Amino acid sequence: MKVIQSAQNKQIKEWKKLATKKGRQKQKAYLLDGWHLVKEAFISDINISFLLVTENFKYLDEIETMNKDTHETIIISEEVANHLSETPSPQGVFAVVSLEDTQDENIVLQGAWLMLDAVQDPGNIGTMVRTADAAGFSGVIFGDGTADVYQPKVVRAMQGSQFHIKVITGSLGSWIQKMHTQHMPVFGTELNPDAKPYDTIEKQHDFAVIMGNEGNGMHKEFLQNTTCNLYIPIMGHAESLNVAVAAGILMFQLKA
Amino acid sequence: MKVIQSAQNKQIKEWKKLATKKGRQKQKAYLLDGWHLVKEAFISDINISFLLVTENFKYLDEIETMNKDTHETIIISEEVANHLSETPSPQGVFAVVSLEDTQDENIVLQGAWLMLDAVQDPGNIGTMVRTADAAGFSGVIFGDGTADVYQPKVVRAMQGSQFHIKVITGSLGSWIQKMHTQHMPVFGTELNPDAKPYDTIEKQHDFAVIMGNEGNGMHKEFLQNTTCNLYIPIMGHAESLNVAVAAGILMFQLKA
Repeated sequence: MKVIQSAQNKQIKEWKKLATKKGRQKQKAYLLDGWHLVKEAFISDINISFLLVTENFKYLDEIETMNKDTHETIIISEEVANHLSETPSPQGVFAVVSLEDTQDENIVLQGAWLMLDAVQDPGNIGTMVRTADAAGFSGVIFGDGTADVYQPKVVRAMQGSQFHIKVITGSLGSWIQKMHTQHMPVFGTELNPDAKPYDTIEKQHDFAVIMGNEGNGMHKEFLQNTTCNLYIPIMGHAESLNVAVAAGILMFQLKA
Repeated sequence: MKVIQSAQNKQIKEWKKLATKKGRQKQKAYLLDGWHLVKEAFISDINISFLLVTENFKYLDEIETMNKDTHETIIISEEVANHLSETPSPQGVFAVVSLEDTQDENIVLQGAWLMLDAVQDPGNIGTMVRTADAAGFSGVIFGDGTADVYQPKVVRAMQGSQFHIKVITGSLGSWIQKMHTQHMPVFGTELNPDAKPYDTIEKQHDFAVIMGNEGNGMHKEFLQNTTCNLYIPIMGHAESLNVAVAAGILMFQLKA
């Protein structure tokens, strides 16, 4: 098995670039960091090109039984692991996996969809993908201005849910239009009593719900093009809810 | 007005220690960083000892009209602001405020209460306090092993909700007992089909709901001492929900 000891190694330098959007697009790959995520990738049908493990990684035997023949396994030093990881104490296991083509416009619009309209915080975004998965949603559509799906902090917070549901990058305007054509209700969210309280809507099978930017909410052009807009009534004195919490409340309430 | 230019100033060194639990307990104070939090403190009835602003802070006039006579205002340099702040780009406004006595056992147990059983992540914890406020809860009880209420990251995520609802540190066992004495239902949370689905419970006025540790869930001794335990059914393939998202779904569902 190949061994890489130095963080100055040329190949390691390339993989380090996977932390940037440019690097991911150039190499058409992204990096999984940590045992839970790597295991999820092995269970899924995603294409793993390289598995990087430190010499003492305790689940190495378990990985070898997982029967993916396509990848090359490389032993890395602790120094390399610390260099590649965005976390303070890496577990010593990484996988370089293929970037899915997330702009697939031929997708079948069925079930429940979450749309993100210029959401910024990568932790919130990843948590929303994880919650959409837990709520039985079909997928999440990342609209313009939303942080990149495969940014390390988003990947960490998704906890592998990108292997369970569709994750698409695209223009929300055209997706909303497609949903209207298919008579799927599209719910916008607006912290505004002109909207309907979220718990007055019947549970739905095929629909979409849109979450807006943390500070500014949804774009007006999208708010005006929804089937109806919803709000979560605030009972106390907090000004608003965290966007990932609000998305969780809405998804679990609306999904039949 | 007093001016402090250097991060080496003795008083600044003392305030820097407010980022640690030891420093907060010794000085019986904690630090608010940012305009939203400082404004919330001015609106509330909390005791502000010092207001620290950079020379160019744009809302200084607005603060001066807020009519709190008790505090001393100190002008600080950008260097001092960067030193005191835990964020990469501080807004240039801080307040040193009194640490509330959060161990008050004479509190009236009415309304809805959130209890945290060894919850670790400060962002999750602060978000849960903010959500409890938004859901109209009376307060949040921080049980043993839960991160400190006044840690900077918790304070940032609470967004001032500590000024709107009670935030108490204490032993969950004795609080659960008190609630039983007052015939308030106490709901535990368990990712376990032996528990009841959360949406089969009637909405409640006076009750408590307990959230457990991110990895290990609630302590067994507490789970066995609740009125009943609830779970949120997972419809997809995610292993679990983020604890702050789960708490939000439960609080908004259960609160009458």
